[in-house]
Amino acid sequence: MSNGAEPMPQWAVSNGIAPPPFKLPLPDNPDIITANMMKMTELTLDPRKRFLWQTITKYLHEFIRETKLTTKEWEEAIKFLTRVGQKCTSTRQEFILLSDIFGASALVDALNNPPTGATESSVLGPFFTDDAPDLMNGDSIASEGKGEYMFVEGRVLSIDGTPIPNATIETWETDDTGYYDVQYSGRETADCRGRLHSDKNGYYGYRAVVPVAYPIPGDGPVGELLIGMNRHNMRPNHLHCMVVATGFRTLVTAFYPEGCKYIESDAVFGVKKSLVVGLETVKDEGEARKRGFPTGDTFKLLKQDLILIPEKQSSEFFARI
Amino acid sequence: MSNGAEPMPQWAVSNGIAPPPFKLPLPDNPDIITANMMKMTELTLDPRKRFLWQTITKYLHEFIRETKLTTKEWEEAIKFLTRVGQKCTSTRQEFILLSDIFGASALVDALNNPPTGATESSVLGPFFTDDAPDLMNGDSIASEGKGEYMFVEGRVLSIDGTPIPNATIETWETDDTGYYDVQYSGRETADCRGRLHSDKNGYYGYRAVVPVAYPIPGDGPVGELLIGMNRHNMRPNHLHCMVVATGFRTLVTAFYPEGCKYIESDAVFGVKKSLVVGLETVKDEGEARKRGFPTGDTFKLLKQDLILIPEKQSSEFFARI
Repeated sequence: MSNGAEPMPQWAVSNGIAPPPFKLPLPDNPDIITANMMKMTELTLDPRKRFLWQTITKYLHEFIRETKLTTKEWEEAIKFLTRVGQKCTSTRQEFILLSDIFGASALVDALNNPPTGATESSVLGPFFTDDAPDLMNGDSIASEGKGEYMFVEGRVLSIDGTPIPNATIETWETDDTGYYDVQYSGRETADCRGRLHSDKNGYYGYRAVVPVAYPIPGDGPVGELLIGMNRHNMRPNHLHCMVVATGFRTLVTAFYPEGCKYIESDAVFGVKKSLVVGLETVKDEGEARKRGFPTGDTFKLLKQDLILIPEKQSSEFFARI
Repeated sequence: MSNGAEPMPQWAVSNGIAPPPFKLPLPDNPDIITANMMKMTELTLDPRKRFLWQTITKYLHEFIRETKLTTKEWEEAIKFLTRVGQKCTSTRQEFILLSDIFGASALVDALNNPPTGATESSVLGPFFTDDAPDLMNGDSIASEGKGEYMFVEGRVLSIDGTPIPNATIETWETDDTGYYDVQYSGRETADCRGRLHSDKNGYYGYRAVVPVAYPIPGDGPVGELLIGMNRHNMRPNHLHCMVVATGFRTLVTAFYPEGCKYIESDAVFGVKKSLVVGLETVKDEGEARKRGFPTGDTFKLLKQDLILIPEKQSSEFFARI
């Protein structure tokens, strides 16, 4: 250094890669810029990655061209994406939220998980924990006073109808305020979540509460964007469920009771038609006691079989998509 | 709250917007997800924004569909974008860098700044400062020992050829190590930058050094991406220039000496054909002294007029694009 001071080495470090074996034409119009970027993707050795860069370039440049994106809009986009990244922490993923509200997460899920004959999948979401209590069939996943009683039962079955005994069922949901237990400060034990197992006939059953619709985080740039789009930030109420059984593809899904006012406008496009379920109202004091509900004469009943696909068939199926 | 504990209000806050007046069909295939997202954009009141959301949705979903983006690739994209956002600080803009290396910044610039007859524009870049010293024509912007001598001169002219007196010219460049002054720790005064004015005939002239090619920041996710793409991270050498004159559109540009080995593969696609310039080698001791160079008998000469467009014509021109 001619002035003796040290430059900041982290700023300007050449990566040591030589100029490409071709010379890009010097651009005198926008089309040459796009062609030059496309040409540069040829340097990527991995064919899948090369295809991804080419497809990103094609659509990114088409977007800019078709919208005649202004410099000011480009600057706003840069600032917005920066804020999205900076909102992320180890427990908050604002970029997933951004992907969610544009339907991108749901589209990736749908393309990668086409119907196989098994119960359809749904995203895991940010509220799964691994500390759910181990319960017996008939137990309640919710403590008293957490909401309207609901009994959930059915059988875990293979796609050919064979019962699957001893499958592990993890289930979790909001209470009647729309909050998951982890959203309360000072949470000491799990609530509105449980882990149980199907019996020798594949049967499972547990007490729960009717889950309640709730908003996705509204305090970040994605929440602001939804307001700018004049869109609510609510998800319809749903009951999460994960089923693990030896020899079967793990099922991660959720069931959406019909009738929720947000079910046809889920902020994250997470509802699938086959996962919408009916809740039966049972008004029978004897039946309520028999099911284990301590008070009242009424509860909702959700009858839902959980259909799994054997791993071997699943591998063959997904190798074809 | 039924358990008396406080939920974290920042997590789950409804934005109070009602469900839309339409009901989206419940998706049982990927196309319905895309159609539903498109339908939701109709809620955006501002027509320009609505068009932007629709175009983003179209190309984002097309990208996912055409590439059959896998869940793992989607997860990697989320992680990458998060890292890009988290690399940004008040002095480091990694998202602009990402836009740069995909040619998006250059494309936005080219579409928004088509040739008007004036000298073409180039991006301001991150190295402009407002503390350049005020100099007289003939002065040097570089302290002694900063590189190979270069004399820059020409006239500031209107697009009809009329000289523009008293235009302010800000100019800045790297020294011969490829660093800008602000990249040295302990910088106390500006170097390799200056502010001067055209004389009554529009003439300007100053001493400088031949700038040197340099890398864009390589210590972040964008630097890693370039390596993954097998692309160097170098920009060809260039001299920045900003010209401000009353009644004229401000010109922000840069000149790229021909012959740099990176000029046909600029990492950020910033070179424009009309901004590539020839440097004349002058070997004449008398001429070197006359120009003010204290030693040697050789210097480079860059003769470059700076053409501005009157504001009125510029407004009319840009209203049409």
